[in-house]
Amino acid sequence: MNKLQNDIFIRACKRQSVERTPVWMMRQAGRYLPEYRAIRKKADFLTMCKTPELAAEVTIQPVEIIGVDAAIIFSDILVIPEAMGMRLEIREGEGPVFHNPVRNEDDARRLKTIDPGRDLKFVLDAVALTKRELKGNVPLIGFCGSPWTLLTYMVEGRGSKNFSRVKSLLYNNPALAHSILDKLADADADYLSAKIEAGADAVQIFDTWGGVLSQNDFEEFSLRYIEKIISQIRRKDQPVIVFAKGVHYNLERLAGAGADVVGLDWTMDLGEVRKKIGSKVALQGNLDPTVLYANQDKIREETRKVLSSFGEGGGHIFNLGHGILPDVDPENAKALVQLVKEESKAFHHRGTETQRF
Amino acid sequence: MNKLQNDIFIRACKRQSVERTPVWMMRQAGRYLPEYRAIRKKADFLTMCKTPELAAEVTIQPVEIIGVDAAIIFSDILVIPEAMGMRLEIREGEGPVFHNPVRNEDDARRLKTIDPGRDLKFVLDAVALTKRELKGNVPLIGFCGSPWTLLTYMVEGRGSKNFSRVKSLLYNNPALAHSILDKLADADADYLSAKIEAGADAVQIFDTWGGVLSQNDFEEFSLRYIEKIISQIRRKDQPVIVFAKGVHYNLERLAGAGADVVGLDWTMDLGEVRKKIGSKVALQGNLDPTVLYANQDKIREETRKVLSSFGEGGGHIFNLGHGILPDVDPENAKALVQLVKEESKAFHHRGTETQRF
Repeated sequence: MNKLQNDIFIRACKRQSVERTPVWMMRQAGRYLPEYRAIRKKADFLTMCKTPELAAEVTIQPVEIIGVDAAIIFSDILVIPEAMGMRLEIREGEGPVFHNPVRNEDDARRLKTIDPGRDLKFVLDAVALTKRELKGNVPLIGFCGSPWTLLTYMVEGRGSKNFSRVKSLLYNNPALAHSILDKLADADADYLSAKIEAGADAVQIFDTWGGVLSQNDFEEFSLRYIEKIISQIRRKDQPVIVFAKGVHYNLERLAGAGADVVGLDWTMDLGEVRKKIGSKVALQGNLDPTVLYANQDKIREETRKVLSSFGEGGGHIFNLGHGILPDVDPENAKALVQLVKEESKAFHHRGTETQRF
Repeated sequence: MNKLQNDIFIRACKRQSVERTPVWMMRQAGRYLPEYRAIRKKADFLTMCKTPELAAEVTIQPVEIIGVDAAIIFSDILVIPEAMGMRLEIREGEGPVFHNPVRNEDDARRLKTIDPGRDLKFVLDAVALTKRELKGNVPLIGFCGSPWTLLTYMVEGRGSKNFSRVKSLLYNNPALAHSILDKLADADADYLSAKIEAGADAVQIFDTWGGVLSQNDFEEFSLRYIEKIISQIRRKDQPVIVFAKGVHYNLERLAGAGADVVGLDWTMDLGEVRKKIGSKVALQGNLDPTVLYANQDKIREETRKVLSSFGEGGGHIFNLGHGILPDVDPENAKALVQLVKEESKAFHHRGTETQRF
């Protein structure tokens, strides 16, 4: 394994001193890049996920083109339910569709217990290949969807506005919901462990739909399974990041779930959140992704606001508050990364550039 | 004007003592009711809005069928942009579409200054007719969309996921955004004033998309126009309710905007919010609308949680945390209203049934 040349992202995850704030962008490998679209012309989305050479190539693109401090393996959270036996289709302009959604005990019983080394070997191969090709330049992040977020797609069968079916399941058959969530937590933990084994330097759990639950329901149906995953991941000192979009409540509980980093959406005030939980976890975020539609003066202004809101010292990883949007100008993405690298120096004291821990 | 026989909703808005918690449901006149669908078969949605007899009929349905403590006039927030000259179509299964979205200064200049008595007479007639037909049974609520929420539809031209175009406008031409928002605030204020003049006993401002803005942007592009509306409404003592979905931050500022009541979505903890702002405003909410998919035992359990969370005393109007969903069983809606009426008595002391103020 190559030693990392740029480990500023890892150090910030561990709340160690850094000379500037590291930056990467959720969904940074994607449609806004012409270089991505060129590959995408040759293969559909799932084929790209399942072809390690293509996955590695688009994973590395933003490192080279945009200059981010970490790569995130190109994949999809739904490869886990697919490996469990669900028939997945990614429809252009519509999103993911499962042709055999999970609606009852029989459907749930049919879900296979997965072995990542066998059923998701293509992801592990992509991780290993990407690590080799990155040559230790920047760290590589592996990821998964939280059990709750996976369950929403598995039950609804597609993207949803009101989450009617999956919420009906929670309320009318909580035992069945819990049994599937538990199985998904085990699968997620094994999957993230295998990614770390294959070379991932950090992992992130995306709870994209945590915020559609009430506070009690979030604790019962999402947070406890995130905690389970984190406690089961086999890792040495690879940081774990949790991003739960829209979960503005119970930040203390989220900070106590065992993750090293909590990701925040753009409706949160970084400074306020730091006061609450900044002594326990690093914070990742949280520029409104639509700011990248603005001119570069406005991008600079909003970038400064995020940096100032967090304030001085380590423990901040700059990111968007959600995924980068597909119609963003890549020049703006580049400008943002450059801005963070320059502007953030003022928030880190000189003379503490070496690791403190 | 008939004196109200059941004024418990109005008293709760004013944080006066009540013998039980009043209850109504956002979007209570709607598709989940077979009686509504029977009318809807005869006329499309906009025709229903524009035919006072039909609007009055569906407005009163939930009072008679579900037993709620207030009626809300059947209408749509987008009648204001339509009156300004925008061509509105409500597409079945898709939602509202504007054929001439507002994208630049020319588009904005073409927006007419409206006179509600002339341009939205059909709403005022519907309010007056509904008031007569309600015979003072329960109060009637008028409503409008917040300027920011109206702007999202006017600029995007339809429902949106990422609000790309309207946010680009905020960032790249804030002056234009402010000029339209200001015009919309004046229109909203005139419109709500005219509804009160026509007989509305209370008004609600819906900021459905407030929560997609960052905290700073919410203050700049939404909250200040809500404050402007409230300061301009011509009213005697008719309560004003503000519902800003997803706005979990700046509750103190929201409570200070001049409204009597703040509505909360289901991700908020009523008890915690009451501690923060309950001495300034009444609170409305906040059962997760999907709880109505559950069996009645679960509905009872969740209803009790909401009531307990708010706790003892006045100043709470029970409602859903967002609109009722179209595929809810009307029996569950009825059961919910009955449950609130019964279960809430325990949270209000006997002997204080008369008004304290």
